[in-house]
Amino acid sequence: MTASTLVTLLTDFGHRDPFVGIMKGIILSRCPAAQIVDLTHEILPYDIRGGSLVWRAALDVFPAGSVHVAVVDPGVGGSRRALVAEIEGRLCLAPDNGLLTCPLLEGGPARIFALTATRYWRHPVSASFQGRDVFAPVAGALAAGEALEAVGTPIADPIRFDVPRPRREAEGVTGEILWVDRFGNCLTNLTPGDVGDWERTPVEIEIEGRPFGRIVTHFGAVPDGAAGGVMGSMGYLELFVNRGNCAARWNLAVGDRVRVRRGETSSASRIVI
Amino acid sequence: MTASTLVTLLTDFGHRDPFVGIMKGIILSRCPAAQIVDLTHEILPYDIRGGSLVWRAALDVFPAGSVHVAVVDPGVGGSRRALVAEIEGRLCLAPDNGLLTCPLLEGGPARIFALTATRYWRHPVSASFQGRDVFAPVAGALAAGEALEAVGTPIADPIRFDVPRPRREAEGVTGEILWVDRFGNCLTNLTPGDVGDWERTPVEIEIEGRPFGRIVTHFGAVPDGAAGGVMGSMGYLELFVNRGNCAARWNLAVGDRVRVRRGETSSASRIVI
Amino acid sequence: MTASTLVTLLTDFGHRDPFVGIMKGIILSRCPAAQIVDLTHEILPYDIRGGSLVWRAALDVFPAGSVHVAVVDPGVGGSRRALVAEIEGRLCLAPDNGLLTCPLLEGGPARIFALTATRYWRHPVSASFQGRDVFAPVAGALAAGEALEAVGTPIADPIRFDVPRPRREAEGVTGEILWVDRFGNCLTNLTPGDVGDWERTPVEIEIEGRPFGRIVTHFGAVPDGAAGGVMGSMGYLELFVNRGNCAARWNLAVGDRVRVRRGETSSASRIVI
Repeated sequence: MTASTLVTLLTDFGHRDPFVGIMKGIILSRCPAAQIVDLTHEILPYDIRGGSLVWRAALDVFPAGSVHVAVVDPGVGGSRRALVAEIEGRLCLAPDNGLLTCPLLEGGPARIFALTATRYWRHPVSASFQGRDVFAPVAGALAAGEALEAVGTPIADPIRFDVPRPRREAEGVTGEILWVDRFGNCLTNLTPGDVGDWERTPVEIEIEGRPFGRIVTHFGAVPDGAAGGVMGSMGYLELFVNRGNCAARWNLAVGDRVRVRRGETSSASRIVI
Repeated sequence: MTASTLVTLLTDFGHRDPFVGIMKGIILSRCPAAQIVDLTHEILPYDIRGGSLVWRAALDVFPAGSVHVAVVDPGVGGSRRALVAEIEGRLCLAPDNGLLTCPLLEGGPARIFALTATRYWRHPVSASFQGRDVFAPVAGALAAGEALEAVGTPIADPIRFDVPRPRREAEGVTGEILWVDRFGNCLTNLTPGDVGDWERTPVEIEIEGRPFGRIVTHFGAVPDGAAGGVMGSMGYLELFVNRGNCAARWNLAVGDRVRVRRGETSSASRIVI
Repeated sequence: MTASTLVTLLTDFGHRDPFVGIMKGIILSRCPAAQIVDLTHEILPYDIRGGSLVWRAALDVFPAGSVHVAVVDPGVGGSRRALVAEIEGRLCLAPDNGLLTCPLLEGGPARIFALTATRYWRHPVSASFQGRDVFAPVAGALAAGEALEAVGTPIADPIRFDVPRPRREAEGVTGEILWVDRFGNCLTNLTPGDVGDWERTPVEIEIEGRPFGRIVTHFGAVPDGAAGGVMGSMGYLELFVNRGNCAARWNLAVGDRVRVRRGETSSASRIVI
């Protein structure tokens, strides 16, 4: 147990109810030295895909040994397992419903355990709030130095959802919008490899067939109110409107298809180079 | 003073304004080792009953010696007293307007003090933000080890509101909805004693005269979109719609009456048993 | 580095995305002993004036040596500088877009530096999230004891916006609404000097020409639903409706003009005195 084990929380619990505070009370009872950080509690109710994506985006700024709890749990109280995965030295707890998909995808080989050692749980275990009764007390025990082997049993078959992959076509690559943030910026699944060397070869973005804008260096590279794309802070193409709400102005949502195409000029340039 | 006294906050201050952060600055100035946990700041403005209920629900996961501040305070600046109650070893600070009702109700005998020692307060004391000027500095002092007797004067007559009690009738028990959570689940005031042995004797739920559903083991025991009840994590009957928003679909709100009735089959069974 | 350097955060990031949690991960990686306090993350997107005002209101309850990060940053990724100012012993980090205006206004002489020492930053630096890549790591370094001189270069020309000042007239003073809080209370820029000795000389408030109410001692000094003003907790005149939402009932917003006038009675009294 270190003096300040970091524990993060990600849920769809919102802020009206005392659920998150109750989980923190349990964690701090088991590990008084824990430092708890909220990732977000505004995942849409039951949105496992969105939760998994946001979770992955946040994890890598935390050090090895940190403990991460995600609870988006429509199947609570049923037979779904509760899991903990060790991914690049971080311990990630979640119900076995797909939440671990994105963290597992990019984190290399993982050790995964089902939480089976009920002596670490809070009793009686309720049918509707296992964030309090299972995940928080086990997270507290792990933060206090308990071994993975003590809290569970190895498994190899966590539930995963299909992560949408960009599709390469004759004239470009088609991906999709995965997340819309508070500003209306739209995170896609298009990587630097998909868009190529956009600084030398202008890249045009189309959304559901409509011309949208170009990839630029930063928001202010287009006039106020104009649209564009940046290679965003999460490592993916993000669509934006400078000082505006892109999702609202362009009526965009998760799942909309985004196509990037190298422009005429750029093809010409590439031949020269 | 321990190395990590837990201090929790519950208010109707919301998240737009810096009020909560300001209270934390004061508490940490008086007790740098405090660990502060937010219970919720989204109590509806001036909703003393809702705040009291949520407060009680959260307190019991925190250890003896922890300090708990609740500020829902429409009477701020007037003659209402500021109180601290010691309930099962926890120190609970609140304006004297009924907020302490639920924590006092279930916590056994309490020592209650009016906060009268103005030397612990922040001066000048404002007429509109005594969370900052009275409750936070006194909470910080208590978290740092100050005695109850030092900060106030014993009283015996805190204001309490009438807590709605279930009514037993010939064919069942009628309670009411006390709280609607972020998912639309509806917490009632019906206890295990009110609903009986629902696992052996099916129990039917009616809301304002409409048939609603049965008590089941967990959300997933009914089909997606179907309604039911579970004995919830707070120890009361909770109404839900599986993977849906019960309050929205059934148009339910705090105060709606909920009746539980043992079904025909069950009555028959009970005779046999 | 003290055992518990306080670090506060104020942003327009909201609560849906993991941005704030990511900043905390970076800060705690650089300074594990930091105590992080959220001031607010619900500044309206890009509202630099509102952010600056709220920031100033919160700072003065924090001790010298504390570190304060504000990120409302529509110009992120462009050529705008990143700054840190030492104001009354507190270290305040923000983009150079006016956010520092209010803290600088009332804080006396300040030392101001542009953040130029890129070795403290997180690399690669993104074009859209310098809260993570610049402000958080530098704040962590400062919280851990790094010197201002190490992280930047002195400057003397931070961007400031014009702060609206009350205008004295023959029959009173006209100010304006600067902030509307969660309860609908409206903070103005009118000071005790502007309103005079309202307890001896009744002061009438008019809003955009409409009679509004008088300044009173506290909310409960007028009947439920009635309007009035109090000398509020931030040191300015605040408009309220007792147990109601003033902004909603009176249709008020930031920028609306508020006039205070000493009443007939009061003028008479003043002659006598």
